[in-house]
Amino acid sequence: MLDGLRPIVGTTGDIVVYPSSGTGAWEAALVNSLSPGSRVVMTGAGHFVELWSALAERLGYRVQRLSSDLRRGVDADRLCDVLAADREHTIAAVCVVHNETSTGVISRLADIRPAIESAGHSALLLVDAVSSLGSVMFDHDGWGIDVTIAGSQKGLMLPPGMGFNVIGRRALAAQAAAPTPRAYWDWMPHLEANRNGSFPYTPATNMLVALDVALEMLADEGMVNVAARHERHAQATRAAVRAWGLDIMSVDEREHSPTVTAVVVNEDDADDVRTVALEQYNMSLGAGLGALARRVFRIGHLGHLGDGELIGALGGVELALRRCGLDPRPGVGAAVDVLAGAAN
Amino acid sequence: MLDGLRPIVGTTGDIVVYPSSGTGAWEAALVNSLSPGSRVVMTGAGHFVELWSALAERLGYRVQRLSSDLRRGVDADRLCDVLAADREHTIAAVCVVHNETSTGVISRLADIRPAIESAGHSALLLVDAVSSLGSVMFDHDGWGIDVTIAGSQKGLMLPPGMGFNVIGRRALAAQAAAPTPRAYWDWMPHLEANRNGSFPYTPATNMLVALDVALEMLADEGMVNVAARHERHAQATRAAVRAWGLDIMSVDEREHSPTVTAVVVNEDDADDVRTVALEQYNMSLGAGLGALARRVFRIGHLGHLGDGELIGALGGVELALRRCGLDPRPGVGAAVDVLAGAAN
Repeated sequence: MLDGLRPIVGTTGDIVVYPSSGTGAWEAALVNSLSPGSRVVMTGAGHFVELWSALAERLGYRVQRLSSDLRRGVDADRLCDVLAADREHTIAAVCVVHNETSTGVISRLADIRPAIESAGHSALLLVDAVSSLGSVMFDHDGWGIDVTIAGSQKGLMLPPGMGFNVIGRRALAAQAAAPTPRAYWDWMPHLEANRNGSFPYTPATNMLVALDVALEMLADEGMVNVAARHERHAQATRAAVRAWGLDIMSVDEREHSPTVTAVVVNEDDADDVRTVALEQYNMSLGAGLGALARRVFRIGHLGHLGDGELIGALGGVELALRRCGLDPRPGVGAAVDVLAGAAN
Repeated sequence: MLDGLRPIVGTTGDIVVYPSSGTGAWEAALVNSLSPGSRVVMTGAGHFVELWSALAERLGYRVQRLSSDLRRGVDADRLCDVLAADREHTIAAVCVVHNETSTGVISRLADIRPAIESAGHSALLLVDAVSSLGSVMFDHDGWGIDVTIAGSQKGLMLPPGMGFNVIGRRALAAQAAAPTPRAYWDWMPHLEANRNGSFPYTPATNMLVALDVALEMLADEGMVNVAARHERHAQATRAAVRAWGLDIMSVDEREHSPTVTAVVVNEDDADDVRTVALEQYNMSLGAGLGALARRVFRIGHLGHLGDGELIGALGGVELALRRCGLDPRPGVGAAVDVLAGAAN
């Protein structure tokens, strides 16, 4: 079944599947590719890169945070400067969250490896693609990624409970050299067992069966079409939000997430809208996370989603905004216009 | 939902749930309760204690194997001797696989803590209850267990993908003192988040919903009745195997597993029987694992299982044995006699 996942990730390399959450796949990527106490740069801003940083610190890695504006993606130029200043190459890896679920900002991943290279640096590139993979075009090999981390519950349309590491050749070599004690997360027993169609320990069998179905769905629609559908849905969502007169977290046209839109409102209004949406319209909106708590709500638009469902969801948000007295201007029509205008 | 699990485990203490396999829950128990490089005694014989030992070694623990006859459970007297000889208490933990799935031998857990105590030793007691919990009476608190390790896919009747650590007070204190780097497996963020009804990272949500249903089923039947049903089914299975004229791995009446029976046949016959059972009767028998490969097949009789289903399964085995030319004497009738005779 991993054969069907390779074109989605854009790799001809190895993929390991864990019974785990995405957090487990973060840990797996670190303990395999790094030696104990290694220095890593965590780039970008948002709740998930903060969580990944905290996890790395708990595991004993020396984390350098390269923060950016919460409303923007990873700054490749600054990354280049930081790496260029690290003349002794003490930085073992650069970590990037591709699509930051908490802000709806997607970083321009294609720029990262060139930034590392123009600094003449040898750092590995580890990428969290949990909320992008299966929804946007992804090019693990072409973008020079060493480890891509993914989960089952976003673009792959499965329940949570399965984590992935996509492993490039340099990462595999780094693993062989890294003396970190590891067992559950160790890539090697997986790669060896997988070759015989088995697993080193009980896999999440039901999830594997479901993954087969999900990959078939993605292959049937075609990844190019899947990505275009997500892009259209994201455009339609932004059109509605702007028509309502509300603010979108992401401010750079090139960095708007195709899978989730974070909407900025006045303090505390976000949780009111979420509560009303849930209680009155049976619709679960994402909460503001970390620094954005209570000021942001999030509209997810990823996975198996049709135009009608999206319009229905935006209609539910508009109703919740009105019921909360936020007096939005009409917005759903703007989304319909986008969906009608854009070629399917 | 963990409230419903407590009476099944026999504890009033803490329980942590991971998106993981049972192997992950093994690792969690070790990295939380032990300091790096600690010495542990792995008791008993069988494939799963070998795997747990290998995992502990990969994580850098110094493992002392206290093997026993493959056909018998943990030898509490020998354990007592080994601990008594460890005058400086360098052994941090004793690890026991309660029900060794590969041999169908269940160890007498109630004897282990008394053995540790009569040696005057301070070792923690870590118990793998993956293939016993939810099928046999279990008394985490009463048996003086420090960490019980469990999985979702056996007596709890769920798909694989969820692991448990049941944590006693001494283990919690040991955790606070153990400087192992840990993140995904760390008990503390789970215990803190669980208090507010949440999780430190995305849980296996669908599995949690299923767990609720499974615990309701166990509560409805009553754990005493569930355990008695498993015992009856195991007796009936053994009656059939003996009637067939075949040998059972477990040799001590007090150590026959209520959840799985391992049947010994001539070299290579086991895989023939398994192949025929699968291909002709659509029935999956367990393989001989590790040292028992090809010489043993295993009949599982646990979880949501009725008398008719068990008789059907034994009938399928009998047909497979005949088709393979092993000339069994009639055995299903003996199982029916046991089931008819024993009070339901």
